[in-house]
Amino acid sequence: MKTHPMKLVTIICEALAREHLLALFAEVGVHGYTLFPVEGAGSQGRRPGDIAEFGNIQVEVVAAPALATVLMERLQAEFFPRFALIVYESDVRVLRPSKF
Amino acid sequence: MKTHPMKLVTIICEALAREHLLALFAEVGVHGYTLFPVEGAGSQGRRPGDIAEFGNIQVEVVAAPALATVLMERLQAEFFPRFALIVYESDVRVLRPSKF
Amino acid sequence: MKTHPMKLVTIICEALAREHLLALFAEVGVHGYTLFPVEGAGSQGRRPGDIAEFGNIQVEVVAAPALATVLMERLQAEFFPRFALIVYESDVRVLRPSKF
Repeated sequence: MKTHPMKLVTIICEALAREHLLALFAEVGVHGYTLFPVEGAGSQGRRPGDIAEFGNIQVEVVAAPALATVLMERLQAEFFPRFALIVYESDVRVLRPSKF
Repeated sequence: MKTHPMKLVTIICEALAREHLLALFAEVGVHGYTLFPVEGAGSQGRRPGDIAEFGNIQVEVVAAPALATVLMERLQAEFFPRFALIVYESDVRVLRPSKF
Repeated sequence: MKTHPMKLVTIICEALAREHLLALFAEVGVHGYTLFPVEGAGSQGRRPGDIAEFGNIQVEVVAAPALATVLMERLQAEFFPRFALIVYESDVRVLRPSKF
């Protein structure tokens, strides 16, 4: 069974950040993601309550390590100052078609 | 890019456990979570079918390792005897604001 | 706190693959999963746009390592040729009842 080491980047944010996020994905070359509404509460460390009780989305991106880093650096620089969001990364092994 | 090693605790349970779960979060100091309805089937090992086909929720908590352990120990002691639930933990790296 | 090392297999696919997937779960012995609708876009590497904008589901299975491998091999052999899907695996530690 062939698998490929990739990164899963999970982003939890206000629904209003959604179009900005999809624009960033297009810009950096993220082609695969899922997005679903969640209820939740969260904080960015210093600012409890930053993320409202409702109206949040969870977005999951599978990307090669280098692309995941680019995505996270852009989120850190451009989204952290403007939106309430939580971003974390984990390791996954993506299944490949057997012919590869 | 600064990231911080944390634990992701995933809880899948009957929707009726929801308020009890949120009360436990408040009590142990969990501030960040997402919650969404899922369809699913599951078992707790010994009791297949414990989790009904519908009416389940999936709850995801990002917490420091020590807090994740406290949360899981409380779930084990107080929720396992009363509710059908599945709990698992994994490693994530949480993105930090660049100024930290 | 007792935990057990398991695999989390995540499957993102067209909603139309759903019944086929549940039939495969029953056949290989997967008893625990969650399933929820997601919005998303994705590609299988070679074929951008394979996964439609809407009408996708995300399915998450917790299984022992050997069962996860069987499941992924079956998905690779039987689902990759027929459906647009993304499959990835990660490591989780499942909480066990304390009496075990």
